Amino acid sequence: MMPDLPNAFWYQEDALYCEQAALADIAARAGTPCYVYSLRAVLERFAAYQEGLSGLPHLVCYAVKANSNLHLLAMLAKAGAGFDVVSAGELFRVIRAGGDPARVVFSGVGKTADEIEYALARGIHSFNCESDSEVALIDALAARRGVRARIAIRVNPHVEAGAHPYISTGLRQHKFGIDFSEVEDVYRRALACPNVVAEGVSCHIGSQILNPERIFEAVDRMLELVARLRGMGLPIRHLDLGGGLGVAYKPGDRTPDIREFAGWIRRKVEGADLFLMLEPGRSIVGEAGALLTRVLYRKRTPSREFIVVDAAMTDLIRPSLYQSYHEILPVRRSSRGTVLADVVGPVCESGDFLALDREMPNVLPGDLLAVCTAGAYGFVLSSNYNARPRPPEILVEGDAWRTVRVRETFEDLIRGESL
Amino acid sequence: MMPDLPNAFWYQEDALYCEQAALADIAARAGTPCYVYSLRAVLERFAAYQEGLSGLPHLVCYAVKANSNLHLLAMLAKAGAGFDVVSAGELFRVIRAGGDPARVVFSGVGKTADEIEYALARGIHSFNCESDSEVALIDALAARRGVRARIAIRVNPHVEAGAHPYISTGLRQHKFGIDFSEVEDVYRRALACPNVVAEGVSCHIGSQILNPERIFEAVDRMLELVARLRGMGLPIRHLDLGGGLGVAYKPGDRTPDIREFAGWIRRKVEGADLFLMLEPGRSIVGEAGALLTRVLYRKRTPSREFIVVDAAMTDLIRPSLYQSYHEILPVRRSSRGTVLADVVGPVCESGDFLALDREMPNVLPGDLLAVCTAGAYGFVLSSNYNARPRPPEILVEGDAWRTVRVRETFEDLIRGESL
Repeated sequence: MMPDLPNAFWYQEDALYCEQAALADIAARAGTPCYVYSLRAVLERFAAYQEGLSGLPHLVCYAVKANSNLHLLAMLAKAGAGFDVVSAGELFRVIRAGGDPARVVFSGVGKTADEIEYALARGIHSFNCESDSEVALIDALAARRGVRARIAIRVNPHVEAGAHPYISTGLRQHKFGIDFSEVEDVYRRALACPNVVAEGVSCHIGSQILNPERIFEAVDRMLELVARLRGMGLPIRHLDLGGGLGVAYKPGDRTPDIREFAGWIRRKVEGADLFLMLEPGRSIVGEAGALLTRVLYRKRTPSREFIVVDAAMTDLIRPSLYQSYHEILPVRRSSRGTVLADVVGPVCESGDFLALDREMPNVLPGDLLAVCTAGAYGFVLSSNYNARPRPPEILVEGDAWRTVRVRETFEDLIRGESL
Repeated sequence: MMPDLPNAFWYQEDALYCEQAALADIAARAGTPCYVYSLRAVLERFAAYQEGLSGLPHLVCYAVKANSNLHLLAMLAKAGAGFDVVSAGELFRVIRAGGDPARVVFSGVGKTADEIEYALARGIHSFNCESDSEVALIDALAARRGVRARIAIRVNPHVEAGAHPYISTGLRQHKFGIDFSEVEDVYRRALACPNVVAEGVSCHIGSQILNPERIFEAVDRMLELVARLRGMGLPIRHLDLGGGLGVAYKPGDRTPDIREFAGWIRRKVEGADLFLMLEPGRSIVGEAGALLTRVLYRKRTPSREFIVVDAAMTDLIRPSLYQSYHEILPVRRSSRGTVLADVVGPVCESGDFLALDREMPNVLPGDLLAVCTAGAYGFVLSSNYNARPRPPEILVEGDAWRTVRVRETFEDLIRGESL
């Protein structure tokens, strides 16, 4: 399976575009660093999930943690998305964006009582529960409010996702999910809770999965589990398979085709009388975004060549935190050849890099670069470290673009502080 | 050398205090997670530097990147501190806190033209320059403004600091500094720039250095360099030795005594006719702070025990980013024994942990924990990942305490975003 969706970022002659908007124009007016997203790319990828699942009762819950920009959420809500949230803050974002709480599933290993109450008050679809004590807490809070809360138990299918250990989540040693060996007991205890409806089963084996066989393996195990639980008399109605589909970070990365992938899941699940939920995040927004940055300095030391740019680990921490590779393209292609260099930011630590030992275009100060596949886990992980204002977010639609989050100011840095 | 300063966090009977304030009271009123700083600990550590250097013309420039809270900066300014900044945002913070720009040095490998202009307009003490092209840019911008800018060349002394590779900065392969072999040429070219005064030499070999011999080695090399440059007729007047002194993260960590360390530097430098600058950050604020968090859940899987708390990698990323160890103490000691557990936060990735495989007090949901030595590179690296509002910062002074930065709200999360 290879992706059949066109790339949102492409060269027209030697100039890099996002859809029909020239990135050089965006940088000139919005400044750098800045995030640029293609609305079309986001909606196409969401639509591919919908089409692949077509005919099966389902809800594609976009994983808000990947990119929680309000405008993007609003566009996805309009396109029919549900949402997977992992905090009350994310639920707040969904509601503010016009999303329907009844199409929201609340995941996560550390839901606080306040967050559960917030979600109950807004009538979300269901909670993905991580432990007996969480089920008991939801039961108690739902009782106080006089409602019944729909829940699924998050099961750990013990499948190796094969990505970075920090984003692999389906192994025994991880904090997530309940072990297969214990899941019947947890359901039995949940059945005894009068204010929860234990009707779902959920799993999520990890993120950035390039080999869908891993997910298919989990699907088989989950379907077996559903049959086993139903055999015990449990009324299992929905199956949440989580997210995890990977995107292309390196040239040559073979990524699963979303429509085919979803179609495979549909064929596996249809006939099982289940309402299916998926929680894709990265595969919807990852390739739809880039981080634009300007070269500040070239620097050569006796052992190494550096390209110092104005974006830093504060803007995109993935290379530093996950040793992630992001392709970096020149916004204007030149005939100046290439150079083997580290691409580094202005932050005062050696961990502040965007690329190490990379064959890079031989750029000059003032040139623009696009750090690709930065639409997921980019802005959401940004910080104000080194007192750096966070960058703006730009949304492109055809040849038009608009700022959907403005660049922070120095005043923003100190908001809430007092002398 | 062992620290002679009292610990700001201590048990009175079984309750943990910061100075004379009970942490349980702070948590009850300020909520969790929250950062708590001891003002006394900060000022004592700053004073230890001042006392050790006493008699020598010097300026202790607190490294703002370690903890840039406005109130802390104001207290340090009042105590006579200069400041080491690495961005215009940090200079803005210093000025807003009442710090004197004339006592500020501007370091960093990626200063933008805007930032240099901002610093020139405010009349900072000097720039630590990282490359020829940066010197040329400062010269041009100073000329346009009709001023002369004092600069030091940051030299890479090629000394191994011995800490995590991300915070080790003084090796040939790092982006920082100019190699010893090239420094004379850079000074010669700087001398030809009419609007810069190349009067300083600077270095910074890294952070969290527990063996001061590494720094002493760098001092020797820098003094030799000063003699060599003066021999060439260069009027070197100031020497900036950077920061880097480590703090205790693990029980039993032997940290250098600040007063003795500074005294040793003083004895090395006195007689050399130099104005000395130091840039301590972590050693001033690190041990003065803790992150308070509440236990949400206990969770057991077949292979592991988890303590799920309400603080996450969004609040303190050091364990995840640098694999750092932070001692975690119960706010109330009990006789319930210990348990081998991972201490994890609510964020949806396996990289969200505060401690792995740690012998922990056998805490229950609702119990409070203090993550120690979190005063440096704690709040400044915090993010809104998973739509989590950033925690408040509390400053303790004796038995009184006040919130010096309030907890963020959901509205803060979406500020600047538009539908």
